[in-house]
Amino acid sequence: MATRPRYIRPLDFKAGRIDMSHGAGGRASAQLIEELFMPAFANEWLAQGHDGATFAPPPELAQGGQLVMATDAHVVSPIFFPGGDLGCLSVHGTINDVAMSGARPLYLSASFIIEEGYPLSDLRRLVQSMAQASHEAGVPIITGDTKVVEQGKGDGVFISTTGVGVTYPGLRIDGRQAQPGDVVFVSGTLGDHGVAVLSQRESLAFETTICSDTAALHTLVADLVAAAGPGLHVLRDPTRGGLATTLNEIAQQSGCGIHIDERALPVAPEVEAACELLGLDPLYVANEGKLIAICAPQAAARVQEALLAHPLGRGAQRIGEVVADAQCFVQMRTRFGGTRMVDWLTGEQLPRIC
Amino acid sequence: MATRPRYIRPLDFKAGRIDMSHGAGGRASAQLIEELFMPAFANEWLAQGHDGATFAPPPELAQGGQLVMATDAHVVSPIFFPGGDLGCLSVHGTINDVAMSGARPLYLSASFIIEEGYPLSDLRRLVQSMAQASHEAGVPIITGDTKVVEQGKGDGVFISTTGVGVTYPGLRIDGRQAQPGDVVFVSGTLGDHGVAVLSQRESLAFETTICSDTAALHTLVADLVAAAGPGLHVLRDPTRGGLATTLNEIAQQSGCGIHIDERALPVAPEVEAACELLGLDPLYVANEGKLIAICAPQAAARVQEALLAHPLGRGAQRIGEVVADAQCFVQMRTRFGGTRMVDWLTGEQLPRIC
Repeated sequence: MATRPRYIRPLDFKAGRIDMSHGAGGRASAQLIEELFMPAFANEWLAQGHDGATFAPPPELAQGGQLVMATDAHVVSPIFFPGGDLGCLSVHGTINDVAMSGARPLYLSASFIIEEGYPLSDLRRLVQSMAQASHEAGVPIITGDTKVVEQGKGDGVFISTTGVGVTYPGLRIDGRQAQPGDVVFVSGTLGDHGVAVLSQRESLAFETTICSDTAALHTLVADLVAAAGPGLHVLRDPTRGGLATTLNEIAQQSGCGIHIDERALPVAPEVEAACELLGLDPLYVANEGKLIAICAPQAAARVQEALLAHPLGRGAQRIGEVVADAQCFVQMRTRFGGTRMVDWLTGEQLPRIC
Repeated sequence: MATRPRYIRPLDFKAGRIDMSHGAGGRASAQLIEELFMPAFANEWLAQGHDGATFAPPPELAQGGQLVMATDAHVVSPIFFPGGDLGCLSVHGTINDVAMSGARPLYLSASFIIEEGYPLSDLRRLVQSMAQASHEAGVPIITGDTKVVEQGKGDGVFISTTGVGVTYPGLRIDGRQAQPGDVVFVSGTLGDHGVAVLSQRESLAFETTICSDTAALHTLVADLVAAAGPGLHVLRDPTRGGLATTLNEIAQQSGCGIHIDERALPVAPEVEAACELLGLDPLYVANEGKLIAICAPQAAARVQEALLAHPLGRGAQRIGEVVADAQCFVQMRTRFGGTRMVDWLTGEQLPRIC
């Protein structure tokens, strides 16, 4: 029944570009929403067409589940890289932040800050990549916003995503739950994402293309929860700052130390070679599809089994254990039998990695 | 018990600037969070220190309330303007989007995209303004993210905020609920925000400083809900695109027409003068602390009373009514007794207004 605003012509996804009017909130903004975002993200909540999206409370709340909210700004450069792009990364990253809180991700919001002149064809590619990631994960994008800044005041596209989820009833999964004796696992190889983005940015060609590991980890988390229940203490995805920084955060929050074994750390040979060439330490390189799981020793066998049985955990390794240490040090037994401190990332190893 | 990472020196809020390391996820990022964001936003959820924040479900869910999620990217230029700044605007804007969905705002997330070199003193001013707006509104910022982009790849600071809320049980407030015969109110003067930002941006000096109306409207919404209950059909804040575009959106969603009376539109004399000088139409200028309320005729007296009794509704006016019109036209009786079409904003009248 409602008439649509009459657009003079449809958006030109071949040669068209974003201009300031697409962010002005008038007819051009409405057209961008109607011809790009609505068909790509197509869901009943977005179709409400309101300033916000309304959704039913999840059933877990009746069993004592709590709500979770997580947000991320994504500014990865370049926007397209081997194995992924800003679009799917922005979906995976926020789904993972919700999942690492021991929660089932429910819904996402997305806000876009687009630089004037950005090609509509690239924007469509990004939006379709987001839509695909969201559909595959079963976590719909239910509300959004688009702003446009003048040429030279942005860098292509920035995407901020926020996720809402519900915790697994009865579980407390967070950095404070790590205890001496707990076992530390990582779900697969380290450093793939950071090296993939860097090699694309610096136009480095290695013999093998290194692909980002960007992936949504929530189904792996569900499997770990099912396998270990309250034996699962901490989940964390080692993104910016890498494994080293994430372990230091957990050590700080739990008031424990962590010992890891260098020989157990999974690093793909081509990533290791690239890191050597570039002077990077894979311990500090960002990952986007890996998690650290810390569990009670009694649950370790079940956690390991659940990791190895999931496509995203096939390369999982038991890498160390939590120890009593009032100083909260993270230490590593090196390949040569010595021990060294693993400190926080200092300065910036790889900027704009996510 | 937990040791903190040892920073060499505290952040220099007088002369310091943001550098790339503040967005790298390592020690400098942790310091920025610990010395700026945590003390300013101080709340139990942020103190969880996790990738996401966990919160208890609101009591309204037991009475049939639904959850609401709304998001906004804020890129206003200049960042500081008469009556407000990017910080409080980013809090008010998202609180209002949640409230306009007929919901009580509960929590906010905030993500920052900061340009390398941005003064820490200005960032602190912004963060304190956000914190004040959030405290005054009673809607805490419970999780966040910070990214840094190279100089020339951003424009100072962009802030994306997302809000979660819970609907008033038993009410359905959205654009589709407008019906022929319904009465249209606006809560106060039009155009203040847009003209305030523009005059600051263009360094225009008028006799009187025009201040932005930026404000959180959720307590006004609560009063309207209490006064009118199911007689309240639509709430919307006329931001980008102004009153004209917002009324067209409502007309389109409801499949009705809307008639407004130019003589009833509240515009401050200094805003009207500035608009005349600048060739702007106040109908299309953005507001950040005003709402449109559409209600059943039986509820109109109570809605008017509730508006006038609230500090943010003192300048409220009844401006028109919803009519049957299959074409969904918005029309205005002019001061001179004629009638003209009020169309959607076309092109961009005022870029980067919010």
